Amino acid sequence: MRTVSVGFLGCGNIGCGVWKLLNEFKDDIRHRANVEFDIRRILVRDVHKKRDQSVPQELLTTDVAQVTDDPDLEMVLEFMGGEEPATRYMLRALEKGKTVVTANKMALALNWDILQDAAQKHGSGLYYEAAVCGAIPIIRTTIDSLQANRIEALMGIVNGTTNYILSRMTQEGSDYEEVLKDAQRLGLAEPDPSSDVEGFDAAYKLSILSSLAFHARVPFDVIYRQGITQVSAVDIAYGKQLGYTLKLLAIAKRDGHVIDARVHPTFIPDSHPLASVNGSFNAIFLHGHACDDMMLFGRGAGSAPTASAVVSDMLYAVSRTEPRYTTFMNSNMLAPGLMVTDDWHCSFYIRLNASDQPGVLAYITACLGNEGISIRNLMQRDAVNGHAQIVLITHDAGECAVRKALSAIDSQDVRVESMIRVEAN
Amino acid sequence: MRTVSVGFLGCGNIGCGVWKLLNEFKDDIRHRANVEFDIRRILVRDVHKKRDQSVPQELLTTDVAQVTDDPDLEMVLEFMGGEEPATRYMLRALEKGKTVVTANKMALALNWDILQDAAQKHGSGLYYEAAVCGAIPIIRTTIDSLQANRIEALMGIVNGTTNYILSRMTQEGSDYEEVLKDAQRLGLAEPDPSSDVEGFDAAYKLSILSSLAFHARVPFDVIYRQGITQVSAVDIAYGKQLGYTLKLLAIAKRDGHVIDARVHPTFIPDSHPLASVNGSFNAIFLHGHACDDMMLFGRGAGSAPTASAVVSDMLYAVSRTEPRYTTFMNSNMLAPGLMVTDDWHCSFYIRLNASDQPGVLAYITACLGNEGISIRNLMQRDAVNGHAQIVLITHDAGECAVRKALSAIDSQDVRVESMIRVEAN
Repeated sequence: MRTVSVGFLGCGNIGCGVWKLLNEFKDDIRHRANVEFDIRRILVRDVHKKRDQSVPQELLTTDVAQVTDDPDLEMVLEFMGGEEPATRYMLRALEKGKTVVTANKMALALNWDILQDAAQKHGSGLYYEAAVCGAIPIIRTTIDSLQANRIEALMGIVNGTTNYILSRMTQEGSDYEEVLKDAQRLGLAEPDPSSDVEGFDAAYKLSILSSLAFHARVPFDVIYRQGITQVSAVDIAYGKQLGYTLKLLAIAKRDGHVIDARVHPTFIPDSHPLASVNGSFNAIFLHGHACDDMMLFGRGAGSAPTASAVVSDMLYAVSRTEPRYTTFMNSNMLAPGLMVTDDWHCSFYIRLNASDQPGVLAYITACLGNEGISIRNLMQRDAVNGHAQIVLITHDAGECAVRKALSAIDSQDVRVESMIRVEAN
Repeated sequence: MRTVSVGFLGCGNIGCGVWKLLNEFKDDIRHRANVEFDIRRILVRDVHKKRDQSVPQELLTTDVAQVTDDPDLEMVLEFMGGEEPATRYMLRALEKGKTVVTANKMALALNWDILQDAAQKHGSGLYYEAAVCGAIPIIRTTIDSLQANRIEALMGIVNGTTNYILSRMTQEGSDYEEVLKDAQRLGLAEPDPSSDVEGFDAAYKLSILSSLAFHARVPFDVIYRQGITQVSAVDIAYGKQLGYTLKLLAIAKRDGHVIDARVHPTFIPDSHPLASVNGSFNAIFLHGHACDDMMLFGRGAGSAPTASAVVSDMLYAVSRTEPRYTTFMNSNMLAPGLMVTDDWHCSFYIRLNASDQPGVLAYITACLGNEGISIRNLMQRDAVNGHAQIVLITHDAGECAVRKALSAIDSQDVRVESMIRVEAN
């Protein structure tokens, strides 16, 4: 029986979940993996705060060095969230040769280079299954099961808050602000929801996922990002009529040396496996040249599902003789030889408000035709007050061409109300 | 750079796929894993048979000892299928200390005990990701990512042939025989389809999956098995009207020391993630006490997807210092202390053909009521030739109670046409 001494950095929702799971599963872990995790020290901000779980008072400390610098601690779990001081603390633990398990996508996405460098230099392990999509084993799968694949595309619903909001908007026809308030009341959205609704959280996760999938660092700052704050119930309803569901997707594609990486509201066909991923569930759909299409679906957040991933990393770490496993170049720059494009190709949903007069439709189609864009579906509604709603979906087209066409269309007679990308595959 | 010498047992569709993937991905494997796989010998039945891939003639042999007994070969890949001689050959390779990677669910499900015993005794590794659901990393996930979970239930679409047939019957309203013939013509069903359509293939996979999920051996012969040969287009159509999709599911549940394990046609709500898994795709849905609901979806068969899993096992095997990883008791008997029940609980869809006369419905509901079974939905169609179709779905009920009620109902006035289990969760 091996005993591994463990320290926590932070003990909020996730930390308490890990505490609980390690305790209730102690015998199974001992029996299955011949290991015992001995939690020795827990860094908290306030030792007197009331906690969900019966964490013994004597383990709590407000002195970080008691966790990061204690030579008796073999493993450090980080549950603080945010970039700092989490990055600094993890660095310190890695420099002291400790195995670090983190659930912190932000710190990892922004500082992967220095964290990984420190791990390599000091022979420490760095594990982060819980940082992306909670219980879903997407990190392990990408690293350990898809090694013989050229992953060409991945598309994920990686943020539960926005998926909950969009699912309810779709089911109820409600407006964004209304559902957001409800989600906040239910504790499903933060009082300041910007990290979720503006797509930051999804972009951190996409940076990590696409870097692993492409074996090439895709830094956070090259990712195009558009949140859901401008999504309107009208567009969701039109999409529904045309057979599409709106999701906030994190998308990364690779074609030879050209990569695109983006987070934005996206229409997908109702028949797509991602379309039925509702509420706070997450899912990652990917395509590899050998495995073909694959999807992993599950709980992307929550105390117990995240703890499931953390404890799996702890067991995975102790089962390895060689620590760490990130194989691509450690750099916060885009890998040399790769190019990120902002001129990706997909279909586009476009909603226009046009004066109901002769020649307007001809004008619109001409503007699109000038940029080589052809139309797949077009729907025109009866004019109200002399204005008609025109909704169209294009065939495959380039982002730049569409933007150019839309700025040509936008005029006194035609207002461009919205443009939403459509991923058909 | 480490070189691993490899022998193949068999070189049909999967073997050729592995040959191709290892060759086209040689540089990436070298670069990513610092290993080179050197294929030295390939056992075939006929060295002169024309093969898809340009497998060099000089590697082929019809002498199995040249693969299993050659001390220069470190790893043996088994692609023969069937119980024998595959089991015997794998045993021999394991006894010679070789790492064995197999795609053979039948040999594994039926002879896991002796294969694993030989592996343990001789310090050999035995890997089988490709044996269950092709490219889907369900073996790795169960072992390496869900260690801290008590898996309470799993339900899978684990056979592509039957899923293809049922998907087409559902979409087209066609009859079983008709679609089966078409599937055979397209090469999607075998000339003798019984292993697929009678549920044997699914039961082999369920034996492997449930044993790993429950950390307790669930042998093949305790699994209840019912195929799709009796499925009628009429029931699929009625199910559709009630909001259910018919799938051949492999189901295993555990409640304390009681297990049920079964393969049968099953109605699931249209909104269930498994309901939209169509065509030859596979998916496994499971519930763990910590991870909550999870689903893995992908290609369950085919040359390239299966090769993706085989090569991932090869890389996984060489990355480990300790071979083998099966942690439960190696026995072909049910684990001591466990009990398999054939009195599982679920909902039931029942179709009856009743004479259109007073008192018949009262009789039916009385028979059900006598067994404590209550009705959730009931639909009665206009009588044709004095006979009415009655379709009902029960609330949660026990299998034995339903069987008892149905044999009481079945009489001169009421014929029980079909009974299909319904899994609502």
